[in-house]
Amino acid sequence: MKALVYTDVETLEYRKFANPEPGPDEVLVRIDSVGICGSDMHAYLGHDDRRPAPLILGHEGAGVTADGRRVTINPLVNDPNSAASRSGRENLCPSRQIISMPPREGAFAEYVAIPERNLIEVPSHITLEQAALAEPIAVSWHAVRLGLASLHPADERRAHVIGGGAIGLAAALALTAMGVEQVTLSEPNAARATYLRDTCGIAVVDTPEQDIPLVIDAVGFSSTRAVASALVSPGGVILHIGLGSSEGGLDIRRITLQEITLIGTYTYTAQDFRDTCNAMFNGRLGTLDWVETRDLSDGAAAFTDIRAGKTLAPKTILKP
Amino acid sequence: MKALVYTDVETLEYRKFANPEPGPDEVLVRIDSVGICGSDMHAYLGHDDRRPAPLILGHEGAGVTADGRRVTINPLVNDPNSAASRSGRENLCPSRQIISMPPREGAFAEYVAIPERNLIEVPSHITLEQAALAEPIAVSWHAVRLGLASLHPADERRAHVIGGGAIGLAAALALTAMGVEQVTLSEPNAARATYLRDTCGIAVVDTPEQDIPLVIDAVGFSSTRAVASALVSPGGVILHIGLGSSEGGLDIRRITLQEITLIGTYTYTAQDFRDTCNAMFNGRLGTLDWVETRDLSDGAAAFTDIRAGKTLAPKTILKP
Repeated sequence: MKALVYTDVETLEYRKFANPEPGPDEVLVRIDSVGICGSDMHAYLGHDDRRPAPLILGHEGAGVTADGRRVTINPLVNDPNSAASRSGRENLCPSRQIISMPPREGAFAEYVAIPERNLIEVPSHITLEQAALAEPIAVSWHAVRLGLASLHPADERRAHVIGGGAIGLAAALALTAMGVEQVTLSEPNAARATYLRDTCGIAVVDTPEQDIPLVIDAVGFSSTRAVASALVSPGGVILHIGLGSSEGGLDIRRITLQEITLIGTYTYTAQDFRDTCNAMFNGRLGTLDWVETRDLSDGAAAFTDIRAGKTLAPKTILKP
Repeated sequence: MKALVYTDVETLEYRKFANPEPGPDEVLVRIDSVGICGSDMHAYLGHDDRRPAPLILGHEGAGVTADGRRVTINPLVNDPNSAASRSGRENLCPSRQIISMPPREGAFAEYVAIPERNLIEVPSHITLEQAALAEPIAVSWHAVRLGLASLHPADERRAHVIGGGAIGLAAALALTAMGVEQVTLSEPNAARATYLRDTCGIAVVDTPEQDIPLVIDAVGFSSTRAVASALVSPGGVILHIGLGSSEGGLDIRRITLQEITLIGTYTYTAQDFRDTCNAMFNGRLGTLDWVETRDLSDGAAAFTDIRAGKTLAPKTILKP
């Protein structure tokens, strides 16, 4: 098959690659659409020890099975018998794997191998470009679910999202879908901010209100954590999704004196992934049209453009 | 009256001071016993901007009212009509005050003024030295309650406490009182560790187990936060009580990838304070004899000894 292979720091080669071989209980999915994630960019820049070259990146895939089913892929492969999986927390399974991380190749390719249980069938009114958004939206859906469960019952359901990438946008959409009426978002890139306002109907603000019960850091650098620490109300919750930097930024004195909860969140449970798909399929997450598409063969240029801040849409989707 | 007055960095003077004047709804309590808290030490060292000299420190007081009631004092004074207070979170009230912080003088004195609603009557089988432990124990009781409420139902009720001061010890006692059967504690001071083992029956360990669902940082320095980040199990909870330093130590990458929750906790609600007193009075928090007593006139020397690590008991109580 043809694949976009990460071969060295800042180097992606579109070339032939051995077809993946499905293991027991696994199927081959012919990829139709696959999104580029911030973590793919992180790996491409050589910043992710978990993803050494050579490797096929990409874990946000949708496509078609050999028997003709249109599917979106939950890329998180876990041991169904681990204690974490049995408690419904597949994302905490100690033997969890994700496609695009060894030993599993990713979906920037014509085919990917994946357990049958990781497939969600896509109804005919949803395109496979839209279906490829299930994975990033599930990340945010899961985070928002954890955050709302941790908010004190007396606190207002009011939220602010830091960062207007796909995860930040999806967090805003998930908040709205879960009934939070006051949702704002901050995004420093003016063109992206305008896109989010005009295309996605998001309340992008330059200066967020203070004292917000639920603050979502969808970036994860020390600078955004400092903003989150200052914005969150006493007794409030910070959801930390991003993997930008591993230290600094949190005002731990304020977190302690004002009883703030910080929740690290990673991927999603299998149920969150299904719930996200259902919400997408039922229209509760909007029109799902905030994408740009590129040929997979053009993938290297897509990475360069994203890095240069030239893409307006929060999600770039590659088409094999 | 006589009081121990913090007059300058590392300077405490035992001298005359104007009697406090009770405001509306307030009473005078003649102090019998008052504990020295880490935050008093912090202020004494000049590290707490909230407590400028000259000031009477001390907020862990028990004593006798003018009409002869033996009481322990909840030192947190809030506005009962604030939204936080009405939701049962008096400790998050924006106008909260605590004795020993302006505008309120503290309890290292013969008398303190406090609202009547802040008093808990002490039964005759409890000494006023024991009753003065209510405040630090309530801090830990509150933290443990928040932590257990945040643990995933599938997680083992197993906890480790970092730090064997009064807050750490009280956390271990509260955990046990709330039904957590496996509780360990780490304390670097060997003499203190031995005291905690022999006098308080605490399982002090040199090397804690890994993968602990509930980790309590009762110190709050970057070094202890680093330990907490490493010990806590995936999906687990870190309770952060201490005010040692305001930055650093947390492994935010691990917190994110392993979905760890960090909860900052501060003081207690009024209900937590009452529940703590009831548990103390009913014997559920042990013998409450882990104290050393000194005359209030000897307070300056007590601070010097605590700072030099010369006190074995987790709590030093001053007697006016």
